[in-house]
Amino acid sequence: MSHPTLVDRRHLDLILHDMLDAEGLCRYPRFAEHSREIFDATIDLAEQIAEQKFAPHNRKSDLNEPQMVDGKVVLIPEIEEALRAFSEAGFMSIYAAAEDGGMQMPFLITSACDALFATANASTPAYPLLARAAANLLAVYGSEEQKRLFMRPIIEGRYYGTMCLSEPHAGSSLADIKTVATPHEDGGYRITGSKMWISAGDHEMGENIVHLVLAKIAGAPAGVKGISLFIVPRFRVNEDGSRGARNDVRLAGLNHKMGQRGSVNTFLKFGEQDDCHGYLVGEPHQGLAYMFHMMNEERIGVGMGAVQQGMGGYLYSLQYARERRQGRHPDQRDPASPMLPIIEHADVRRMLLQQRAYVEGAQALGLYAASLVDHGHEGDETTRRESTQLLDLLTPIVKAWSSDWCLKANELAVQVLGGYGYTREYPVEQYYRDNRINPIHEGTNGIQALDLLGRKAMQAQGAGLKLLLQRIEACCAAAENDAALAPYAAALREAAALCARTTLEAGKRIAEGEVRAVLANANWYMQLLGHTCIAWMWLWQASAAARRAAAQPALAEFAAGKLATCRFFFATELPQIEHWARLVSDVDRSALEMPESGF
Amino acid sequence: MSHPTLVDRRHLDLILHDMLDAEGLCRYPRFAEHSREIFDATIDLAEQIAEQKFAPHNRKSDLNEPQMVDGKVVLIPEIEEALRAFSEAGFMSIYAAAEDGGMQMPFLITSACDALFATANASTPAYPLLARAAANLLAVYGSEEQKRLFMRPIIEGRYYGTMCLSEPHAGSSLADIKTVATPHEDGGYRITGSKMWISAGDHEMGENIVHLVLAKIAGAPAGVKGISLFIVPRFRVNEDGSRGARNDVRLAGLNHKMGQRGSVNTFLKFGEQDDCHGYLVGEPHQGLAYMFHMMNEERIGVGMGAVQQGMGGYLYSLQYARERRQGRHPDQRDPASPMLPIIEHADVRRMLLQQRAYVEGAQALGLYAASLVDHGHEGDETTRRESTQLLDLLTPIVKAWSSDWCLKANELAVQVLGGYGYTREYPVEQYYRDNRINPIHEGTNGIQALDLLGRKAMQAQGAGLKLLLQRIEACCAAAENDAALAPYAAALREAAALCARTTLEAGKRIAEGEVRAVLANANWYMQLLGHTCIAWMWLWQASAAARRAAAQPALAEFAAGKLATCRFFFATELPQIEHWARLVSDVDRSALEMPESGF
Repeated sequence: MSHPTLVDRRHLDLILHDMLDAEGLCRYPRFAEHSREIFDATIDLAEQIAEQKFAPHNRKSDLNEPQMVDGKVVLIPEIEEALRAFSEAGFMSIYAAAEDGGMQMPFLITSACDALFATANASTPAYPLLARAAANLLAVYGSEEQKRLFMRPIIEGRYYGTMCLSEPHAGSSLADIKTVATPHEDGGYRITGSKMWISAGDHEMGENIVHLVLAKIAGAPAGVKGISLFIVPRFRVNEDGSRGARNDVRLAGLNHKMGQRGSVNTFLKFGEQDDCHGYLVGEPHQGLAYMFHMMNEERIGVGMGAVQQGMGGYLYSLQYARERRQGRHPDQRDPASPMLPIIEHADVRRMLLQQRAYVEGAQALGLYAASLVDHGHEGDETTRRESTQLLDLLTPIVKAWSSDWCLKANELAVQVLGGYGYTREYPVEQYYRDNRINPIHEGTNGIQALDLLGRKAMQAQGAGLKLLLQRIEACCAAAENDAALAPYAAALREAAALCARTTLEAGKRIAEGEVRAVLANANWYMQLLGHTCIAWMWLWQASAAARRAAAQPALAEFAAGKLATCRFFFATELPQIEHWARLVSDVDRSALEMPESGF
Repeated sequence: MSHPTLVDRRHLDLILHDMLDAEGLCRYPRFAEHSREIFDATIDLAEQIAEQKFAPHNRKSDLNEPQMVDGKVVLIPEIEEALRAFSEAGFMSIYAAAEDGGMQMPFLITSACDALFATANASTPAYPLLARAAANLLAVYGSEEQKRLFMRPIIEGRYYGTMCLSEPHAGSSLADIKTVATPHEDGGYRITGSKMWISAGDHEMGENIVHLVLAKIAGAPAGVKGISLFIVPRFRVNEDGSRGARNDVRLAGLNHKMGQRGSVNTFLKFGEQDDCHGYLVGEPHQGLAYMFHMMNEERIGVGMGAVQQGMGGYLYSLQYARERRQGRHPDQRDPASPMLPIIEHADVRRMLLQQRAYVEGAQALGLYAASLVDHGHEGDETTRRESTQLLDLLTPIVKAWSSDWCLKANELAVQVLGGYGYTREYPVEQYYRDNRINPIHEGTNGIQALDLLGRKAMQAQGAGLKLLLQRIEACCAAAENDAALAPYAAALREAAALCARTTLEAGKRIAEGEVRAVLANANWYMQLLGHTCIAWMWLWQASAAARRAAAQPALAEFAAGKLATCRFFFATELPQIEHWARLVSDVDRSALEMPESGF
C-alpha cells in the first residue's frame, strides 16, 4: 500500500483559516509579528519533521519499549534524535513569550502543529509537551528566579519536565495524596512520598528534568485545600544555572502499558534519603489551583491527541479501502466481474464516514477551543470573559467526547482492514492501543462528565452554555439561507434547544437536592452536549467549505464531501441525543439504585 | 486484589436450568443417558481444568507468542499440557457421538463448558475447538474411511485440525479463492495454492493436523458454486491409520496479532513441490455448502468467545471496583471521611451495569442459540424446522451483536480500572485485545448484518422472524402479570412490534428494487434486532430469577440484581432502537450516496 499522509491539509486549512480566522489573531499585539504565511510555514515545517523524524520510529518504539537498566531508563535513540529536530526547529519554544526566548505563536497554531506530531507518533511528543506544560505553568506562577533556573532551560530545549499528581492509592482522588513537604532551614522544602503514572518521569535525555510535584505541607488543611505545588528537579541547579548534585528522586519502576509504549511511564520515589529538595511555587495550599489553571490546555491536548490517533487510523483505513479489492455489490454478484475496491461497499463507507465524522468533527472543536485560549488571553475584557467561560464549558467535552469517540474511530479503522487490521504489521491496531489511554488520563471521562454537568454547565448562571447556544444559533442563522444546509440548521437549532431544556431541568433537580441522582446521568449529558457540539462543527465545516469552493472551484469535490459527511452525522449520529436528553431530564436512577449486593 | 472467579455459577445455572431446561434435552434419545447431575458435574470439571490448566498461562502465552524456528512453530509448553488435561477429561470428544467414541453431550452443555475455557484463556482453546469443528464436519460429510482415518484420531485427542478458507487476496470474498485441486491418477487430488489467517495452522502438538481446505477443481464453475472441500493432512495417513510421509504443506509465515497471541496464526503454502495430497469431501463443488453447514456452530462459538472475554473483564473489574477505594460522593466531600469503594460511584456502577447487561444478556442469547442446535437436530419434525429457522436468524446476531457489544464491555472494564487498566500488569487490557478479533473473523460483522437483513430475515417468508416474535410474545405474556416486570413486558412488546414493522418496510423496499440502499442500513438493522433480543433475554432472566428466588430465598439478592440490570438495560439501552429502526425504515442513503471523490 502506498504511504498515507499524516494530514489532509485542505481540511486543516479550512478549520484554521475559513472557520477560525487564524490570521485574525495577529490583530492582538502578542501575535502582531505573525501572519498567515508564517503560520502556514510553521505547520509545513511541523509536517515535515513529523514525517521525517517522528513517523519512522513510531512502530519501533512500540516494539522496543523503555527498559530500566541499572536504575536508568534506556530509550531507543530515535526518540532523542526526533526531539533534537523538534527543539532545533523551535517547537519547544513555539508558545513561549518572546521575552523568554519563545516564538510567541498562538495556542491555536501550537495545537495544530502538535496535532501533526501526534499522528506521526503518539509517544515521542509526550516528552517535549509535558516539558512545555511545565514551562507554561512556571511562566505564570514561578518566581523570576524559578523562571530563570527552571523554565528557560526547558524553552531552550535543554531540560525536560513532568507533572507529578497521582500516587498509587490516589489517582482520581487527589484530595488524598500523601506526599509531604517539610520546610527546611535553607528556606526550601524537603519532599517525601511517591508518585505514580508519571509520564517521561525519568530518562537520560537533556540535562535535567523539572518535576512539578503536588504535596502537602505538614499541618496543611485536609483535602484539596491543603495541596501545594513544588519544583523538584532531578538534578539540583546552582545559583548560576549550572547543574548541581543529583536530587533524592529515584526511579522505582516502570509501568508497562497497552500502548503509547515509547513514552516511559514511571513510579517515582521522593526523599528516600530524606534529601529531596523542593521549591514552593507561588503560595502554599494553592497548588491544585495552579495545576488546574494549566489543566484547560492539558485537557485540550489530550482531546486533540485522541483526535490525532483517530485521524491516523482514519487516513490509513481510507487509503486501504481505496486500494483493497474484495467482493461485489449485493445486487451484482457475477463472479466473473472484477472485485470492487472495498470503499464501494456501503458498510465500509459507513465505517469510514463514522471515523471521519468523529475525527474531523472533534478536531474542529479542539482547535476551536484552542482558539478560545488565545482570545481568552489576548482579547478585550468582554472577549476574554466570554472566551474563558465558553472554554471552561467546552474543555471537558473536548477531552472526553473526543477520546470516547475517536477511540471508536480507531476500532472502526481496524474493522475496515479486517484480519490485516488485527495484525501488528499494519499500524491501525497500534493507533487503537495508543488511543486507549486518552479516556483515562488527565481526569477520567467520568470525572469530565461530572465536571461538565456538576460545575461547568451551572457556573456563572450558565454563562458558558448561553454563549455556546448563541454561537450555535449564529452558525444556524448563517447557514439557513443555503437550501443545502437549511435542514441541518433546523436540526441543530432543535438540538441546541434540547440542550438548553435539559440543562435547565437538571439544574432544577439539583437545586431540589437531587444532586446524586442527577449527576448519576452525567455521562449521558456529556454525550448530549458533545454530539450537539460536533453537529455544530459539521454544519460550520460544510458551510465554510461551500463558501471556499465558491471561490476556488477546484475544491468542489472537497466541499461536496464535507456536506455529505455533515449529512451523515445529522442522519446517523445526532438523533441519539433525544435518548440521552431523556435520561438526564427524567433523572434516570437505574444505575444509582442498583444494589451493590445484586452484583 | 483477591483472585476473581471465572464464572458466576448462579447466573450460569439460571440460564441452563431455569431458562433453557437443559435437563429437558435428556428426553431426546441422543441424550437419554445424561441428567442434570451429569451436566453439572461436567461443567464443574470444565471449571476446574479451566482454572488449573488454562488460566495460569493466559498471560504467559500473551507475552511469549508462538515463534517460527527452523520452519517449525514453537509454543510455550503449558499449552500442550493444558490440552492434554482437556482431552483426557473428555472435552475433545464431548460433543461427538458415542459410536465415534464421543461423550454425546448436547451442544448446549458443550458450549457452556467451552465458555469457561474461553474466559480462562482466549487462545489455547483455539487448538482443540478448531479440531472439534473439523471432526464435526467430517462426522456429517466424510466417508466412512475419512471418518476412520481423520475424524476418529481428532476425537481421541491425537490429531488437531483447521479450517482453511481465506487467501491473502480473498478474505471475505471466498468466491475469489485461487487454490486449485487437480485430479490425480491415484484417485485423489493434488492441491496448489496458499491460505491466510489459518489459526492453529501448524505446530508440533499431537501426531497430525487435518486441514479442511476450500479449493477449486480445474474447470469448476466460477464463484462460490465452484468451490470444493478437501482433507489435506499435514502428514499423509496410511491405510492402516499409521502416519505416512510429510505432505507438501509448508508453513510460510506467522501473523503477529494484537491479541489472542497464544493461538498461532499462519500463512500456509500448499503444493510448492506439486505433491500436496488432498482428498475430496462429499461431492465436488459443494464445499462452501458443507462449510456453511458447520458455520452456525462456529459463529455461535465466536459470539460466545466474545461474550466470555467480556465476562472476564466484567468479573475482574467488578471485584476491583469493590476493593479499590477512591473519592467520595459528590454531595459528601468531607476529606476527613474515608474514601469509598469505587463501586459506590454512580458512574462506575453504570460502567459495571453496562458490561453486565451486555455480557450476561449475550451469554443467555448464545446459550439459547446453542440449545436450538440441539432441538434442531433431535426434536420432532416441527421442532427441528422451527429451531433451525430461528437459529438461522439468531446466528448472525449472536456472532455480531455479541462481538460488538462485549468488546465495548472490555473497553469499560479497562476504564473501571483507570491507569491500572491500561497496564499489562492487569488482565483487562488483554481481554480487550483478545476480543478485538471477534468482530472480524468467521465473517466480519458487516457481513453478518448483510446476512441477517438480506437473507435470514427474509427467507421462508420471514419464518425465523415470526418465530422470534412469537417467543418474545410468550415471554412478555408470562411476565406481564408480575407488577415488577410488567413495564418491561410492555416495552419489549413495543420493541418486537417495531422489529416487525421495520422488517416489513425493508422487505417492501427490497421488493421495489432498492436492494443496495436497504442493505446499506444492515448494520442498523442488526443493532435493532440485537438490542431487542437482549432485552428479551433480560426480561426472561429477571423473570426466571424471581421464580427461582421465590423457591430459594437465599437467591433474593441475586434476583434483585437481575431485575435491576433488566431495568438498566430497558432504561439506558433499549430506547436506542427507535433511532436505528428509523434509519432502516427511512432507507437512509447518507453512506451510500457519499461520493468517493469527497473523501
